[in-house]
Amino acid sequence: MRRAVDLAARGLGRTSPNPVVGCVILDPAGRTVGEGWHKRAGGPHAEIHALAEAGDDARGGTAVVTLEPCNHTGRTGPCSRALVAAGVVRVVYAVADPNPTAHGGADALAEAGIDVEAGVLAAQAEEVNTAWLTAVRRQRPHVHWKYAATLDGRTAAADGTSRWITSGPARADVHRLRAESDAVLVGSGTARTDDPHLAVRDVPGAEQPLRVVLDSSAAAVAPGARVLDDRAPTLVVTSTTADTSVLEAAGADILRLPAARDGVGLDLRALLAELHRRDVRSVLLEGGPTLAAAFLAEGLVDRITGYLAPALLGAGPAVLADAGITTITQAQRFTLTGTELIGPDLRITAVPRTTEES
Amino acid sequence: MRRAVDLAARGLGRTSPNPVVGCVILDPAGRTVGEGWHKRAGGPHAEIHALAEAGDDARGGTAVVTLEPCNHTGRTGPCSRALVAAGVVRVVYAVADPNPTAHGGADALAEAGIDVEAGVLAAQAEEVNTAWLTAVRRQRPHVHWKYAATLDGRTAAADGTSRWITSGPARADVHRLRAESDAVLVGSGTARTDDPHLAVRDVPGAEQPLRVVLDSSAAAVAPGARVLDDRAPTLVVTSTTADTSVLEAAGADILRLPAARDGVGLDLRALLAELHRRDVRSVLLEGGPTLAAAFLAEGLVDRITGYLAPALLGAGPAVLADAGITTITQAQRFTLTGTELIGPDLRITAVPRTTEES
Ligand SMILES: NC(=O)c1ccc[n+]([C@@H]2O[C@H](COP(=O)([O-])OP(=O)(O)OC[C@H]3O[C@@H](n4cnc5c(N)ncnc54)[C@H](OP(=O)(O)O)[C@@H]3O)[C@@H](O)[C@H]2O)c1
Ligand SMILES: NC(=O)c1ccc[n+]([C@@H]2O[C@H](COP(=O)([O-])OP(=O)(O)OC[C@H]3O[C@@H](n4cnc5c(N)ncnc54)[C@H](OP(=O)(O)O)[C@@H]3O)[C@@H](O)[C@H]2O)c1
Repeated sequence: MRRAVDLAARGLGRTSPNPVVGCVILDPAGRTVGEGWHKRAGGPHAEIHALAEAGDDARGGTAVVTLEPCNHTGRTGPCSRALVAAGVVRVVYAVADPNPTAHGGADALAEAGIDVEAGVLAAQAEEVNTAWLTAVRRQRPHVHWKYAATLDGRTAAADGTSRWITSGPARADVHRLRAESDAVLVGSGTARTDDPHLAVRDVPGAEQPLRVVLDSSAAAVAPGARVLDDRAPTLVVTSTTADTSVLEAAGADILRLPAARDGVGLDLRALLAELHRRDVRSVLLEGGPTLAAAFLAEGLVDRITGYLAPALLGAGPAVLADAGITTITQAQRFTLTGTELIGPDLRITAVPRTTEES
Repeated sequence: MRRAVDLAARGLGRTSPNPVVGCVILDPAGRTVGEGWHKRAGGPHAEIHALAEAGDDARGGTAVVTLEPCNHTGRTGPCSRALVAAGVVRVVYAVADPNPTAHGGADALAEAGIDVEAGVLAAQAEEVNTAWLTAVRRQRPHVHWKYAATLDGRTAAADGTSRWITSGPARADVHRLRAESDAVLVGSGTARTDDPHLAVRDVPGAEQPLRVVLDSSAAAVAPGARVLDDRAPTLVVTSTTADTSVLEAAGADILRLPAARDGVGLDLRALLAELHRRDVRSVLLEGGPTLAAAFLAEGLVDRITGYLAPALLGAGPAVLADAGITTITQAQRFTLTGTELIGPDLRITAVPRTTEES
């Protein structure tokens, strides 16, 4: 199953709106005879790839899959039927399919006389599919906030300079995160100050994410902005009724949304609903501080990756702006899930603390 | 030598103005027959303890010592002579003694016909003695800045509440740092806001550090302040010429120093020189943000320990105030030397980046 989870991870960033899935086929003697993973939406499921590689050796064998095999005749036909047809006698899977249109695969397999075991290495398999599982359960994309800061929580110096707070390796790691995401999001402040590109560079075989800029008055992104080049699609989200044809001519798609009921900018729940409708299952929120604070205040941050440079500035903007927290007991608490050195910097990952823990 | 370094560490916080030293005596067959460490200033050196335990078994054997054995007749007599008298035939040490009054031990041993080897596990042995070595080399105490902050670098919420940002285990770890330090230092802002105690609690056998409050006008510390109890000695540093007899009656020692030439508060170099004169070799700087910035701006921070709570506040004071840095290239850069989970929090340690690295 560990191997199946590793195979699944290879699909990250390319399978939306589908989950990532990995599958290993063992022959009756327990030897690996087939491996597969779901490579892209619309393509064959992991089981189909693995069965094709195994051929006749699958007969009497075992299929190890990270997710409950599907039972619906979607674009690729139900995997449960394919497993039965291949003569597999045992199926071991990690995570049940929470998707109402796909689940029921385990029952179908059992009815066909196959020995089915669930829950093996479920935690690891959940982990690799976190974004997709969150999206299915919450009916909105998974939101992953990424930031880069000094030890004293600054994202720039007093004069606004921020190139570079973190090292080359840390910045390269951000491209990996982008490659694993369906969309990358920034606010108009960042668009205006940094003119960011937001596309993936130097990740072999990466699919480009949708670049999204929240720009209420469609004034921060103008023709010539780097985000408007043809390296990746770009969506400018706005509440303006003004003419945006210049932006469209420059290559942007325009999405009009209502303004937030209270506070600045656009309605974030409406944004996420619309992105979800467009098959975006995972969003990398790249700031800035104001937009991150708005997501946080609405409880819409599902995961944090922070790149901490071992540096001190003592002045300059903080990485997170006012999120409506006034006293210590209201602090938003997280659970650290990882710390790793990336070049000279420290990468930390965290997820919201669940109520049981707090 | 690894064992000798561990033994040396047991003396941390109790040997000032002396270094910590550990010693292991091996008999001719290489068996450990004696162990010792320097337990407190004025007490026997590590070698003397270890030789006493070894007795006659030291004859023909080897002494493994973290620091070059001393050669001066101080309070305890030269260790070089004791090693010769015990019949040791080989001495292996890690770090040369940089102290002009103590060094020369290696030469004396070699002259007595003993086989001397230097530099074994020097890095580890330097590490355990960092504070003392810094103090000898710079002729001022080693300064270790400790802070506790959220991921966004806040030390308190917008309303000033900060109890507790970090967890119980992290706060307990601070007591370990205090126990390893000769003095603990805070500014008048912290004294006023937090009424801190600054003594060591719950560290068995710990020696209490000198509690030092920098309080230019001797107005932040008043009788009844927790820092004035009898758990540890307390020094109030001030530039006022006003009468401070009330404070003295309440148990404080008073040190009068000139004001800083420019900027707020007292002259920090004069402070460190005076603490050094009082045999303080290591200072734990516990804040707050203004005082930490002043030390940093003068290049007087030798080590940082940060306790990072996986929490976000979005508002509230930053852990470090203005240190005169205006643009990103002036950022003070450090090298991470450690990261460790302490309960739910992350402890990071860092030292100033040396010019070769930057
Ligand atoms: N170190 C890092 O990780 C990092 C990452 C990104 C940016 N930065 C830095 O952050 C700075 C810019 O940050 P910023 O805080 O000024 O701008 P920002 O967070 O990028 O953008 C904020 C703007 O987005 C728009 N917006 C639209 N909908 C919103 C909503 N629901 N909630 C909040 N904002 C919404 C608002 O302007 P309109 O309503 O007018 O559109 C708002 O003023 C730059 O200096 C950049 O270098 C640092
Ligand atoms: N999270 C943490 O790790 C941590 C640790 C400590 C404190 N805190 C928080 O920090 C806050 C207090 O910080 P603060 O910045 O107001 O005060 P502070 O840094 O504790 O003290 C600053 C004051 O110290 C005096 N001082 C004397 N010599 C100085 C010098 N050379 N340079 C700078 N200051 C010198 C100055 O006042 P005078 O000249 O008038 O004496 C100065 O205003 C509190 O809210 C406390 O809770 C947090």
